[in-house]
Amino acid sequence: MRVSSSLQATAELAGWAQRLEQSALQQMLVATARPGIISFALGMPAVEFFPAESLAEATARVLSVNAGALQYSPPLQSLKQHVRELMKRRGVDCREEQIFLTAGAQQGMSLLSRLLLEPGGSVITEELIYSGFQQVLDPFQPNVLTVSTDAETGMDVEAVEQYLKSGARPSFIYSITDGHNPLSVRLSSSKRKRLVELAEQYSVPIVEDDAYGFLCYEDPLPPLRALSERWVFYVGSFSKILAPALRVGWIVVPEELVLPLSVIKESTDIDAAPLSQRIVNAYLDTGQLPAQIEMLRTQYGLRRDTMLRALAENFPDAASWTKPDCGFFVWVELPSTVDVDELFRRALEDEHVAFIPGHAFSVNKKRSSSIRLNFSHPTTARIEEGIPRLARVLKAKLW
Amino acid sequence: MRVSSSLQATAELAGWAQRLEQSALQQMLVATARPGIISFALGMPAVEFFPAESLAEATARVLSVNAGALQYSPPLQSLKQHVRELMKRRGVDCREEQIFLTAGAQQGMSLLSRLLLEPGGSVITEELIYSGFQQVLDPFQPNVLTVSTDAETGMDVEAVEQYLKSGARPSFIYSITDGHNPLSVRLSSSKRKRLVELAEQYSVPIVEDDAYGFLCYEDPLPPLRALSERWVFYVGSFSKILAPALRVGWIVVPEELVLPLSVIKESTDIDAAPLSQRIVNAYLDTGQLPAQIEMLRTQYGLRRDTMLRALAENFPDAASWTKPDCGFFVWVELPSTVDVDELFRRALEDEHVAFIPGHAFSVNKKRSSSIRLNFSHPTTARIEEGIPRLARVLKAKLW
Repeated sequence: MRVSSSLQATAELAGWAQRLEQSALQQMLVATARPGIISFALGMPAVEFFPAESLAEATARVLSVNAGALQYSPPLQSLKQHVRELMKRRGVDCREEQIFLTAGAQQGMSLLSRLLLEPGGSVITEELIYSGFQQVLDPFQPNVLTVSTDAETGMDVEAVEQYLKSGARPSFIYSITDGHNPLSVRLSSSKRKRLVELAEQYSVPIVEDDAYGFLCYEDPLPPLRALSERWVFYVGSFSKILAPALRVGWIVVPEELVLPLSVIKESTDIDAAPLSQRIVNAYLDTGQLPAQIEMLRTQYGLRRDTMLRALAENFPDAASWTKPDCGFFVWVELPSTVDVDELFRRALEDEHVAFIPGHAFSVNKKRSSSIRLNFSHPTTARIEEGIPRLARVLKAKLW
Repeated sequence: MRVSSSLQATAELAGWAQRLEQSALQQMLVATARPGIISFALGMPAVEFFPAESLAEATARVLSVNAGALQYSPPLQSLKQHVRELMKRRGVDCREEQIFLTAGAQQGMSLLSRLLLEPGGSVITEELIYSGFQQVLDPFQPNVLTVSTDAETGMDVEAVEQYLKSGARPSFIYSITDGHNPLSVRLSSSKRKRLVELAEQYSVPIVEDDAYGFLCYEDPLPPLRALSERWVFYVGSFSKILAPALRVGWIVVPEELVLPLSVIKESTDIDAAPLSQRIVNAYLDTGQLPAQIEMLRTQYGLRRDTMLRALAENFPDAASWTKPDCGFFVWVELPSTVDVDELFRRALEDEHVAFIPGHAFSVNKKRSSSIRLNFSHPTTARIEEGIPRLARVLKAKLW
């Protein structure tokens, strides 16, 4: 007998899933996809720099040699060898047995969080941090211990020490050491050393998100992983140096963590080598990546310079911003009287320019008058057109 | 000061992650990858049937038309249209707004479990069930309510009803309605109806894993999703009908669940359209899939017939097995005196033949004298060679 009166309309969702909302970045993707918009919003690489032809050739080679490339097979060993070489260019000496292949940096962070974090556990992170990482944490509903970030030297490592000294034992410390998203700062050399010392002293691992680390525009520093093989879990990606739609990245961890990571990934998406791993591998076989990275550094460096110049020429004196060594963003602090949500709406409507309000990255949902500007995706011409437009809104409506 | 004496050697892992072990299937992949082994072990499609050339052409078209195919972009709408057409061939009328694209069926199950299941919640499933699904459940440490499976009619739906009647409210019921893995049975028409009625009556969704549903060798039945738009969450995949390394699959759910699924997937791997979605889409544009599926039905049907004949001719009378309508496996019940682990070792060492002991699929780790044989991967010649070899071990060593 059907008990129609007691019928529920929809399935009951898991507790945390009932509170899910579309991320600010996804909403932005929709809002700024309208034609004619000059977008400084998202952290996308430039399509015109993708080695599309070389990747097409690599795919053709992969599929003509061996239809087995389309079969279930273990993660690609030869790609791990390439990653090992790549890590050397980043100043890191690691072994193939320490490399775990992922479907991009986001999956890397997600898998490491599942490996390390108990529901209700704790994590140390900066107050302003990549929102995708915050999404990774969400289902665990962890106790997030936040520290501030210095605009010149990065994460407040003394505050990290205070937490640890007072007994906090987080599952891990999250660090974007180079090309910080959204703050566009890099961690100073002395803080790098100190942070790793703390990790070792308190047996707390650091998850180092190095999505932008290969794109430094001046004097790159080695990442934290170069300072500790045991306590720094490194997350890398081909999304920014090759192409995001390949969905290929990697993790470098102590060898004994590779098996548990693979079991977790297997439950998530089988952990068989996807075709895209073979495409990346075949591309790397050609030896073109170092020149590709050099080209990107030059081109993105130009875009960065163009944006910095445009800001200096157009933005009011009361605004200040970082000069990024690395990565895709400029972080602009506006006077506290500026309502950045209102600025966002007016900029989009009146001048067809988009950016991301800084508070979208705040762990504690703190309001602020900061904005994040991306310079990797728009051409120099669009940057030169868009920044004055944004400045116009800033001056006209809100000053 | 470094407190060397208190140094831990390794990071502390999340509780459930400390108990992770390599899955039986992964171990099998290694054990049976040795050259010269005739493997009936894994559920792999046949490389020789992959449309490698067409997929290479599709990739070339995708990358020559538009380097934007390599950029971050929302899940591919045109692929959802193709999936909608494909679902019609499966007897299901759904809307594009109900389709969610995944990186394969495993990810589909994983995302739905995260959407529906609380840690420590409960789920109804058969006692013998695809081990990849058991891996999906593991991190939730759920209360798994098991029911038995009838060799002719499938899942014991009355036992499902008993659970529900006595107050159990599982987060979902898991069903492999067609091409059951590992039992190779399909759910009878009357049980399909009854199971969906129960789902509606008790407001408990069914997660229907249809990885093999397009590969029925006689009179396909419509899946459960054809009977309920609201209470059946359908999981599909291109892995078995196109190629696994593409890692493309889909879910069909009530429209309002697409957004939460996308937020969960975003935290896991960004949920941007991977290149592989575009490759599958470009392949589907050519209209070759229906003929491809027909070819697979014919070829895998031949392999199935070859295996059934070889079993009848070589296996002892005391053994019995299913005749699969659909899917990749034959489930063989051996006399209870047979130690299938010993059989496995001897078969591998003496005759270089592999299979999977049935208890690898048991939720409650129940011992049994059953084995699962795959017929999709070996050629008919290898089947004709391998089954007599396996029968030889069976007769010589253990009878």
